[in-house]
Amino acid sequence: MSEPSPVKSTEADRKAAFAASCHLLHELLEELSNIGKSEEGGMTRLLYSSSWLKAQQHLQHVMQGKGLVTSFDQSGNLYALLEGTDKNSRHKPLFTGSHIDTVISGGKFDGALGVAAGMVALLYLNEVYGPPVRSLAAVSLCEEEGSRFPFAFWGSRSVTSLSDWDVAGDLKDTEGVSMLEAAEICGFGPISSYPVRPFEPDGYLELHIEQGAVLERTGTSIGIVTDIVGQKRLDVMITGEANHAGTTPMNYRKDALIGTTEMIIRIHELALSYGDPLVATVGTMELLPGAVNVVPGKVIFTLDIRHTDKGIMNRFIQEALLIISESAVRNQLHAEWQEHLSVDPVAMDERWIERIQNACEVLDFSYRKMPSGAGHDAQIFAEVCKAAMIFVPSQKGLSHHPEEFTSEEEINRGFRVLVEMLYQYGYRGKTDE
Amino acid sequence: MSEPSPVKSTEADRKAAFAASCHLLHELLEELSNIGKSEEGGMTRLLYSSSWLKAQQHLQHVMQGKGLVTSFDQSGNLYALLEGTDKNSRHKPLFTGSHIDTVISGGKFDGALGVAAGMVALLYLNEVYGPPVRSLAAVSLCEEEGSRFPFAFWGSRSVTSLSDWDVAGDLKDTEGVSMLEAAEICGFGPISSYPVRPFEPDGYLELHIEQGAVLERTGTSIGIVTDIVGQKRLDVMITGEANHAGTTPMNYRKDALIGTTEMIIRIHELALSYGDPLVATVGTMELLPGAVNVVPGKVIFTLDIRHTDKGIMNRFIQEALLIISESAVRNQLHAEWQEHLSVDPVAMDERWIERIQNACEVLDFSYRKMPSGAGHDAQIFAEVCKAAMIFVPSQKGLSHHPEEFTSEEEINRGFRVLVEMLYQYGYRGKTDE
Repeated sequence: MSEPSPVKSTEADRKAAFAASCHLLHELLEELSNIGKSEEGGMTRLLYSSSWLKAQQHLQHVMQGKGLVTSFDQSGNLYALLEGTDKNSRHKPLFTGSHIDTVISGGKFDGALGVAAGMVALLYLNEVYGPPVRSLAAVSLCEEEGSRFPFAFWGSRSVTSLSDWDVAGDLKDTEGVSMLEAAEICGFGPISSYPVRPFEPDGYLELHIEQGAVLERTGTSIGIVTDIVGQKRLDVMITGEANHAGTTPMNYRKDALIGTTEMIIRIHELALSYGDPLVATVGTMELLPGAVNVVPGKVIFTLDIRHTDKGIMNRFIQEALLIISESAVRNQLHAEWQEHLSVDPVAMDERWIERIQNACEVLDFSYRKMPSGAGHDAQIFAEVCKAAMIFVPSQKGLSHHPEEFTSEEEINRGFRVLVEMLYQYGYRGKTDE
Repeated sequence: MSEPSPVKSTEADRKAAFAASCHLLHELLEELSNIGKSEEGGMTRLLYSSSWLKAQQHLQHVMQGKGLVTSFDQSGNLYALLEGTDKNSRHKPLFTGSHIDTVISGGKFDGALGVAAGMVALLYLNEVYGPPVRSLAAVSLCEEEGSRFPFAFWGSRSVTSLSDWDVAGDLKDTEGVSMLEAAEICGFGPISSYPVRPFEPDGYLELHIEQGAVLERTGTSIGIVTDIVGQKRLDVMITGEANHAGTTPMNYRKDALIGTTEMIIRIHELALSYGDPLVATVGTMELLPGAVNVVPGKVIFTLDIRHTDKGIMNRFIQEALLIISESAVRNQLHAEWQEHLSVDPVAMDERWIERIQNACEVLDFSYRKMPSGAGHDAQIFAEVCKAAMIFVPSQKGLSHHPEEFTSEEEINRGFRVLVEMLYQYGYRGKTDE
C-alpha cells in the first residue's frame, strides 16, 4: 500500500491542524469537566445518570457537527466512525477510546482524556488525510469504573460479546435500581431501537493517564503499557475476644488487633522482598466492637494484591496466607479469609508495544515500558483482539480525585502518539497481519 | 456502744431472713432485667428515658411497699432511707448503691446489682435488727455510664455537689435533646419540687461485678477494691499519603497504616514490659479514605491507658508518644495527638478495705485486693467522703454485654459482705472516727 496523499499537503498545514486539534481536545475536556460537577469537588457521572447521558449526548453532538457518523448501541456505548475506503473494514474498525463515567467526585482526565483524544484524533486525521483505508472508531464506553453498578467494564464486556443484559440487567445500584431499569430511563436497553453492537473491534487502543507517579518521578513523557496487572482481593477476618479495656490485664487478652498488626507488617515486608511490580495493600480495616474502652474482639481487613505474573501473584498470596495463619495461632486468634475478586493479568499486544516505542523514538519523546497497576477496558478487549495502551503522567500520581492533573503539554505528547498509531493503522497499511 | 438486741434473736431466724433476702434480691434483679429489654439482647435504660424512669419507679414502689422511706432529688437519684436512732445522722447517712442506667444492650448486673443489693440489705437489717443507730441510705444514681449524655457519674457528681445543672443541663444526647429537657420530661430538674440533694453522704459503699476475669480465673469470691485506676484517652492521627493501590509501587508509598501497625506493636510490647496493673488498648481505628484499592493516607486511632499510679501512667504515656513520634519520622509520616480524657487514680479508704478483708476472713470467703480497671461512682464519692467497693466475679469477664453473668451463689457472698459492712457501720458503732 502506498503512502496516502495528504489533503493538507504541507508540513506547516499539518502542524497548524495538529495545534488546532490540541486546542479542540483541551476545550472538549474542559466542557466535559463541567458536566456532572460535584458539590464535593470534581465530577460525578455515574452510569445512566442524567449527567452521564448529558456527557454522551454532548460528545455525539460535537462529533456529528464535525462530520463524523455517530451511533449508540443498546448498552449506551457511543461510537464515532471514520469509515475506511476498504469496505471490508466497515464493520470491524480499530477502536480507540475510553469512558466518561466517573467515580464519585472523580477527576477531569480519568477516562475523559481517552474518549476526547480518540474522537479529536479521528477529526484531525480526516481533515489532514481524508478518509482512511481501514475504518477507525472512537468509542465512549459504559461503566468502566463500576461505581454505580457492581459490574466494571460493562461497556467493553458487552461490545466484545463477553457479557449481556441477561448477566448484567438485574444488577442493582445502592438505591435498588436495576441496571436495566436505569438504562431504559436513558433510552437504552434491549427494547430500544439500538443494535446490540454495531461493530466488532479489529483492535483497541487507549490513551489514559497513568494514575501513578512513576512517569512524573522519572521525568518520562509516555508510558507504554506492557501488561495490565492481575489482581486478587481478599477479605480477612481475625477473631479474638472482646474485653473491657480497663478490667482485662494485658496477659489475659486475645486482642484481635495486636495479631493483625503483626500480620500486616510481615506481609508488607514480604511484598518489599518480592519487589516491583508486586503491590500489596491493606486499604480498609474495621475493629469490632470498635469502642475506645473495649479490646478489639474482631478485625476485618482487605488485602489487595497485584502483579503482572499470575504465578508470582499466587505464590505471594500463599505466603501471605501462611503468615496470617501462623500469626493467628501464635496470638491465640482465629483467622479466616475469602477471595472476593480475582482478575488474571493481561498482556498488551507486543507488536503494538513495539510500534508505540518506535513512534516515541521518532518523535523524540521519552518513554518507559511499564505495567498498568489499575484495570482498564483494554484488558477486556485483549480477550478478543489486539489491545494496547498509552499512558501520560499524572501529577502526584493522583486519580479518582478532584485534583487529578496532567498538563496540556503532556497531554499533547500522548495525543501525538495516539494520532501516529491511528494513522499507521488507518492510512499506511501497517497492519498486524 | 453496746451490741444492739436483734429483733430476730436466734441464729436460725437470722439465717432464714438472710435466705429470704437473697431470694428477694434475685427476684428484684430479674424484675429489673425485664425493664428496658433491648431487641438486640440485654437491656437498654438510658438516663431519663421511659425505661430508666420505669426502673426507678419500680424500685421506689418496692421499697415503699416494704416500709422504707424513699425520695428523689432534682437529678433523679433515688434514695431509700433507713433512719438511725441517732438523729444527728439523719442528714448524713452512709450511702450504699450503684446505678440502673445501662449502656445500649447492657447486662443484668452492671449497676443493678449494687442498687438492688443495697436496698434489700436495708430491708434485711431492719427486719432482723430493727432501726440502726446511724442512718443508712440505699441509692440508685443517675447516668453512671454516660451512655446517653457525655457526662458519666452525673448522679454522684450532683449529690456530692461536684457538679450541677449549670454545668450539665445543656449537654445534648445524640439526637440533640439536652439533659435538662430530658430530665424535665421525667419530672426532674431545678424547677421540680425535689430537693437539690436531700442527704450528704457520710461514706459510700458499693457492691459491683468485677467486669474482668481475674476473680473467676483465680477462683476468688470477693474482690476488695484498693484503687480505681486513673485513665487517659488519646486520639492519635497519623498522616501519610493516599495513593492508588495498583499504580503506586511499594517504595513510593507513605502508607499511614504501615507506620501505625509498627507503633501499636511497640506500644503493646512496652505495656507488657510495665506489667500489671498497666493496661493500654487501641480500641478504635479508622483508615482514610478507607477503600480496598487505596493506600491509606490517614489513620486515626484511640489509645486508652490505665494505671493505679498517676506517675507511672504518665511515664508510660510519655514513652508511648516517643514511640509514635519516632515511628512517624522513620516512616515519613506525620503524627499528632490529643488527650480527650484524663482521670486521676483514686484510692479507696484503707480502713474500709481492712474491715472488708476481716469480714471475708470471718465468713471464710476467699478474697483478693485488686484495683478496679473500670470507673465507678465510688471514685466521685471518694472526693468528699470515705468510699469502698466490693467486687463479685464476672463470668468470662463479660460486662456491658447481654451475656453478663454472675451466679446466685457468688452474688449471695458479695451481698453477705455488704450486709456485714452496713451492720458494722449502722449498728455496732464501728465508726471511722
